[in-house]
Amino acid sequence: MIDIGEILRRELGSERVLLRGDDRLEPYGRDESPLPQVFPPDCAALCDDAEQVATVLRLCAEHRVPVTPRGAGSGMCGGALPVRGGVVLSTEKMQRILEVDADDMVAVVEPGVVTGNLAEAASAAGLFYPPDPASLEYCSIGGNAATNAGGPRAFKYGVTREYILGLEVALMGGERLRCGRRTAKGVTGYDLVAGFVGTEGTFGVITELVVKLLPKPQGAATALAVFADVAGAGACISALLRSGLRPSVLELADRASIDHVRHKSRYRFPASAGAVVLIEIDGDPEDLQTQIERIGMACDEQGAVDVLVASDAAERRGLWEARRLISPCLKEAHTIKVNEDVCVPRGRIVEMLRRVDRISADTGIDVAVFGHAGDGNLHVNLLSNDDPGDPAVRAHVMAAAHRLFVETIELRGTLSGEHGIGTSKRDFLPMEQSEALLEWQRKWKRMWDPLELLNPGKVIPDGVSRCSE
Amino acid sequence: MIDIGEILRRELGSERVLLRGDDRLEPYGRDESPLPQVFPPDCAALCDDAEQVATVLRLCAEHRVPVTPRGAGSGMCGGALPVRGGVVLSTEKMQRILEVDADDMVAVVEPGVVTGNLAEAASAAGLFYPPDPASLEYCSIGGNAATNAGGPRAFKYGVTREYILGLEVALMGGERLRCGRRTAKGVTGYDLVAGFVGTEGTFGVITELVVKLLPKPQGAATALAVFADVAGAGACISALLRSGLRPSVLELADRASIDHVRHKSRYRFPASAGAVVLIEIDGDPEDLQTQIERIGMACDEQGAVDVLVASDAAERRGLWEARRLISPCLKEAHTIKVNEDVCVPRGRIVEMLRRVDRISADTGIDVAVFGHAGDGNLHVNLLSNDDPGDPAVRAHVMAAAHRLFVETIELRGTLSGEHGIGTSKRDFLPMEQSEALLEWQRKWKRMWDPLELLNPGKVIPDGVSRCSE
Repeated sequence: MIDIGEILRRELGSERVLLRGDDRLEPYGRDESPLPQVFPPDCAALCDDAEQVATVLRLCAEHRVPVTPRGAGSGMCGGALPVRGGVVLSTEKMQRILEVDADDMVAVVEPGVVTGNLAEAASAAGLFYPPDPASLEYCSIGGNAATNAGGPRAFKYGVTREYILGLEVALMGGERLRCGRRTAKGVTGYDLVAGFVGTEGTFGVITELVVKLLPKPQGAATALAVFADVAGAGACISALLRSGLRPSVLELADRASIDHVRHKSRYRFPASAGAVVLIEIDGDPEDLQTQIERIGMACDEQGAVDVLVASDAAERRGLWEARRLISPCLKEAHTIKVNEDVCVPRGRIVEMLRRVDRISADTGIDVAVFGHAGDGNLHVNLLSNDDPGDPAVRAHVMAAAHRLFVETIELRGTLSGEHGIGTSKRDFLPMEQSEALLEWQRKWKRMWDPLELLNPGKVIPDGVSRCSE
Repeated sequence: MIDIGEILRRELGSERVLLRGDDRLEPYGRDESPLPQVFPPDCAALCDDAEQVATVLRLCAEHRVPVTPRGAGSGMCGGALPVRGGVVLSTEKMQRILEVDADDMVAVVEPGVVTGNLAEAASAAGLFYPPDPASLEYCSIGGNAATNAGGPRAFKYGVTREYILGLEVALMGGERLRCGRRTAKGVTGYDLVAGFVGTEGTFGVITELVVKLLPKPQGAATALAVFADVAGAGACISALLRSGLRPSVLELADRASIDHVRHKSRYRFPASAGAVVLIEIDGDPEDLQTQIERIGMACDEQGAVDVLVASDAAERRGLWEARRLISPCLKEAHTIKVNEDVCVPRGRIVEMLRRVDRISADTGIDVAVFGHAGDGNLHVNLLSNDDPGDPAVRAHVMAAAHRLFVETIELRGTLSGEHGIGTSKRDFLPMEQSEALLEWQRKWKRMWDPLELLNPGKVIPDGVSRCSE
């Protein structure tokens, strides 16, 4: 058997390749997914530049070793886990912001740049990078592009795909390829960039990105509206959208989520609080105060139990506090928290929440739901305080997740709104997609990676025919 | 030789297949491109539904006959021309709007639906379909998706790709495939939909679309600002964007464009007018009047020669009049009008206009430029009153277009911002894209259409290796 770690060390220098037995290798077998297993790689290559990335991909192809690309390791679905061993190729050290051009309104960055740092660099240049996944402070832009990350602002500003104008990628075998452009628009040739975004590192490894930036909104204002139940919250959201409002953020949380943050939140939720809606608008500061007051009054008219509005930054942070506390509070209170991110057509949100309640009642598994109501993208958290090491417990939770997927698809929804598929949701894909559709995706994957060595075991389940090949 | 027309008539019914000798076949050899040649097809199949589209693709694959899909025939680059003969497959009769769902904020439509009709149906349901190509009143949504059409509103709202959630396509050979979703977001599997949009009918034929709709802005306001020259207009645009403004429309036209519309425009352009900027904002009617007045004052401060603002619909139409007149007036005044749509990084617009002037001076070919300044997407019109039938005249115009592409690429721009490549710009692609990149695109094309019978001769130039195969 070949020793890929030693081969990589000779080419990259030993300081860039972590081998088995090194404590520093351990984190590369885990990510933020709730999978119980750890998948230790044979080694991890920490690349400094595109040249080194290409070298790793060339050597691994030569020696037929699987490679799993990894950004910041903040993925929720095991997309960065080396489930078939081999090499983890990390871009975490490639953190250079090469360019922020205020006239062209673009940034050129390496894939390891932390998304929050990109947003700050844009802001310092008077510009705006909208996508805001919850992991903003530690996820990387390369990973965001690989998973087509979303976030609360996606409702107004769209997802990561809309901001990736150009890519440099390295392909299995070591070829480097530039695609896309530096211009805001462009239809010259096929859209390889849009085709690459969201493929979770199964087509190639992103080594550089040209990112579109927007004019920076000069202000924002926030409203928090509490309702007796999610049906009331849903009706209010529908009424706001029908009035032509296009908020930058439109978030919803259910009673269970509220109950989990009550004790920590400075805002005292009314005892009757059964749902909370968070609305944010951005734009010209001169108009925001009156606009947010109008929104607050509309929420009142729609039967809100309580409404707060703020256009001052500190007060706005206060309104966001409860929303930001939900996920950590859920985690703190449970030994098991499986955060699914199903997405349903916007008009089916309230029905989806009703069905989630039924799943909870039927299975006895506690559920808390919050998320991006404007997009129909709900973070359904399956919660338990049983032993996470017990396979029966996990099977029970996964059965509830399966029910959730069944209901989602019945409502014409999709399994994942922003987390991706990775390894954890891969076997559920045939619930949503036809075998013909899966087979075309396998063909597309093999076009880029005929040896199927790049991030194997991810996204698309193996075809029946593959077993006999 | 097989008679594909007769074969199709047997399967589809003779009333759906136009044969050679039928006058009604003639328009299928032309489109809106300025190509001097006509490309008569062997026959045209006017399909009523997806089943018939699939039948045509099955029979043509069986008999190895090229097929050229066609929407409304409004393309500017010959994308719908049957350059290698065979069958034109028209979707123009597939005009059903199957669904406009105000709760889910989606529409489901057939590909032949005229884009303006989709926009109207959305509006009637209190929703908004933003993309607004100039051909809105006669182009079709299937063609818009096939070319990833843009338009003035793309600056704020993005291009067609951002609004196509799901597609049903028919593939060469007759397979029908559903991809995408009905939800606003989704990252389940690879993004076949984004991969299909903009491929100009070379991957498959779109037979149904799920279209994303937005909340309808309740009002709009418009400003028209005249400057002494494009440098002044460019500085004003930069200043507005730096202030955080995100207009829905940000259009620019040069002196030559103004001079062509002076005699027809109700607005009396000042004699010194060297550039005009059109700005539109949309949103809450209560705020629009003061906002547009602030924008007008900012234009004043930036040295505008004249500024007009309007928030009333009729007055706004008046401000748009001059912009709308440009293209027809240019056409009326010249025997040759080649409308290129290069796109440069936003910061290079003024420099691009300077270079266009130099091309005009060097070649003696008149040029008028207008377009979507916010996106750097400029419609550079090459104008001549020489004999369009004279090959030397055309060669002279094409030499100027070549110069234009050279300068565009030197400024890190792209050949086409929204028209696409089709057949007319195909041979210029290697100026912008590497042979490696072109070869990956050929592979992608062959994945979908290994016989290379679907819209052959389009988008990607044939590879060197193809000649010897």
